Amino acid sequence: MKVLITGVDGYSGWPLAVHLLKRDHDVVGVDNFVTRRRVREVGSWSGTPIAPFPRRQAAVREVLGKELRFHKGDLQDFDFVRGVLEQERPDAIVHLAEQRSAPYSMIDVHHAVATQVENLTGTLHLLYAMRSVCPDAHLVKMGTMGEYGTPNVDIPEGFFDIEYQGRRDRLPFPRQAGSWYHWSKVFDSGDVMFATSLWKLRSTDVMQGVIYGVRTPDLTDRRLLTRFDFDETWGTALNRFIAQAVLGLPITVYGRGEQRRGFIALEDSMQSLRLALEHPAEPGEYRVLNQFDAAYSVNELAEVTRRIAAEFGLTATIEHPPDPRVEAEEHYYHPIHDRLTALGYRRTRELDEVVREIFRDLLRYRGRLAAKRHVLAPTVQWRADESRSALAARSAAPSAKPAEPAPSDEPSRTPA
Amino acid sequence: MKVLITGVDGYSGWPLAVHLLKRDHDVVGVDNFVTRRRVREVGSWSGTPIAPFPRRQAAVREVLGKELRFHKGDLQDFDFVRGVLEQERPDAIVHLAEQRSAPYSMIDVHHAVATQVENLTGTLHLLYAMRSVCPDAHLVKMGTMGEYGTPNVDIPEGFFDIEYQGRRDRLPFPRQAGSWYHWSKVFDSGDVMFATSLWKLRSTDVMQGVIYGVRTPDLTDRRLLTRFDFDETWGTALNRFIAQAVLGLPITVYGRGEQRRGFIALEDSMQSLRLALEHPAEPGEYRVLNQFDAAYSVNELAEVTRRIAAEFGLTATIEHPPDPRVEAEEHYYHPIHDRLTALGYRRTRELDEVVREIFRDLLRYRGRLAAKRHVLAPTVQWRADESRSALAARSAAPSAKPAEPAPSDEPSRTPA
Repeated sequence: MKVLITGVDGYSGWPLAVHLLKRDHDVVGVDNFVTRRRVREVGSWSGTPIAPFPRRQAAVREVLGKELRFHKGDLQDFDFVRGVLEQERPDAIVHLAEQRSAPYSMIDVHHAVATQVENLTGTLHLLYAMRSVCPDAHLVKMGTMGEYGTPNVDIPEGFFDIEYQGRRDRLPFPRQAGSWYHWSKVFDSGDVMFATSLWKLRSTDVMQGVIYGVRTPDLTDRRLLTRFDFDETWGTALNRFIAQAVLGLPITVYGRGEQRRGFIALEDSMQSLRLALEHPAEPGEYRVLNQFDAAYSVNELAEVTRRIAAEFGLTATIEHPPDPRVEAEEHYYHPIHDRLTALGYRRTRELDEVVREIFRDLLRYRGRLAAKRHVLAPTVQWRADESRSALAARSAAPSAKPAEPAPSDEPSRTPA
Repeated sequence: MKVLITGVDGYSGWPLAVHLLKRDHDVVGVDNFVTRRRVREVGSWSGTPIAPFPRRQAAVREVLGKELRFHKGDLQDFDFVRGVLEQERPDAIVHLAEQRSAPYSMIDVHHAVATQVENLTGTLHLLYAMRSVCPDAHLVKMGTMGEYGTPNVDIPEGFFDIEYQGRRDRLPFPRQAGSWYHWSKVFDSGDVMFATSLWKLRSTDVMQGVIYGVRTPDLTDRRLLTRFDFDETWGTALNRFIAQAVLGLPITVYGRGEQRRGFIALEDSMQSLRLALEHPAEPGEYRVLNQFDAAYSVNELAEVTRRIAAEFGLTATIEHPPDPRVEAEEHYYHPIHDRLTALGYRRTRELDEVVREIFRDLLRYRGRLAAKRHVLAPTVQWRADESRSALAARSAAPSAKPAEPAPSDEPSRTPA
């Protein structure tokens, strides 16, 4: 199968490309490297050194003996998108090229608009290009479990059968997102659902839980590592906790820490995406998969981090500063996730072992975390106006030299 | 009360300004005249001659003895939006400045993107500007009944109480829109709902039915008339039917004509908006009002048109060409609309009398319709690729001279 991955340079896109190549799929990548630039914008970098893209391609060639073809370009440019599809005629497209940070979208009005406009435009361009070039291709689009919010009822996979005022229908499950970013994913879901019905496309919308982990068994070479974001804007809570523990800082759980979310290990997320690709949706089918395998509260993640830290001789304390987000701190959370299992999905990784693996990797790159330790504290406030100036001050601030040389790469050396 | 109306030069915006001024509210308008330009883009114009904006203002001054202040500018420019709010400090904002045509959004990828991007960006800019300048102002935003689609259950006003898998919650009613335009309104609703909860704004989201009519009792002067769009892109089905009957053309009902939608007379829509303004939402309240007072099928509208045409000595026949849209032709349709009644709304106009009034106005401007009769046929196809070239051919085609001089205005004489 020939798979086009948009956002191939990103956290999921990169290991997915390697995962599919190793399983003898043909892979073509697209990226504009905007995430590398935007992580730099907030004064941070990847905790793991990530190689410039040509070195990543070279590593794939050497380690796997495979060629990863690549088109540098922006999904905001419709002619570029159509041109790539015309040249490549993929069987499937995995669309990961979106602004993916909730805090980034909350910085100010311009970041809010950029997030929603770019995500919507890229998806619409892809949909129209697919319609005219490869209407039989299968679109696998990345949504997020965050689209559903935290309703007081079970969360089905996309649609639910309801009875209301004595009549019945099968309807899209209501979305209640919690950031401009999460709303942008809701909007994308609407557009993909509509285009699928309009033009009889094949689509799978993956409501993805939070992914954790920095390597898969395929990423055997140092140059094959994927990125690890730990700053408050681009990193997840778990990533921040582990970085804090590695640096000997207190683990900061915002608010009471009872917020629950769905999680999945990086490797199992790759398994899920491959299963979705190998079992495509039917023409006209808009299929929604809830992709996670366990729900944890923020407190549980902090506890796991503290426990595994101790195995490495690190003593971590847990603090509870106020939550900068606007979200329910205690809530019911029971999303259903049966469809991937029906496609053959089996969980292969447990939280503990993956957290242990992340500690091992990060201890090796401790200097990179230490150099950017100032990016761990929250500056983006969901309700207040000061996010932008705080961030501006941060990116202007001189940062300490990394304690260890970072041989391969640095975001600023991204190929132009 | 000081009310800012964005899109004050438009079909609803203009009569709303006059309606509020007559009732001693202070009104400030904003517009960028893009609708006049875009109607010209598809080769059409308003069936009623609409005066250039400065002449509209002069008429308000003479007829009402009131001043309608105006800011020319674009909601895509955040500094403009914030500047207007800082200068005017309105008590309420009625946000009508959106691309409002479903067929226009379906022309091609660029019209799809422009519709969603502009509508989202304008609304986000307004929300952020309100937050920083006038967080206590009341936002009345125009949504559409089309956001709900045609589910097989009753349609509540925005939210519904459901039981699912043995648990209960009050959730947003699922949206299933039928064009990129309608989806853009769904997206706006999400953003307004989120901002309202985030920043404790006051907001009313008006799920508006199709409005009909070309005058209100306030529009007593020829220069005060509002626009009447009859072309396939900007006009409603009812407008097209009446224009066809006036020109002696067959009335074209797409498909079987059993599609049902909610309708409200222009004058009663003004009454509704005023009631919403005079009873503002509470801080943090996102209030949804379904604004229509009767549901009609397309066949019923065609029949009314034929019956009233006969009163004017016009013989109209009804034809059923294929539906260029993708929509259910037969469906359940029972939306609830109690909230406006609770605020004091009473229907004052009946369909028959308003249709009669439209006939009277259009017979006077028959030459303007005749000059653009080629814009009545559908060229925008929901499923096909040819919309754009058909439209391009149309706007390039020379159109006949109007049979009657159009003394006041023409879109091309819009003030620069």
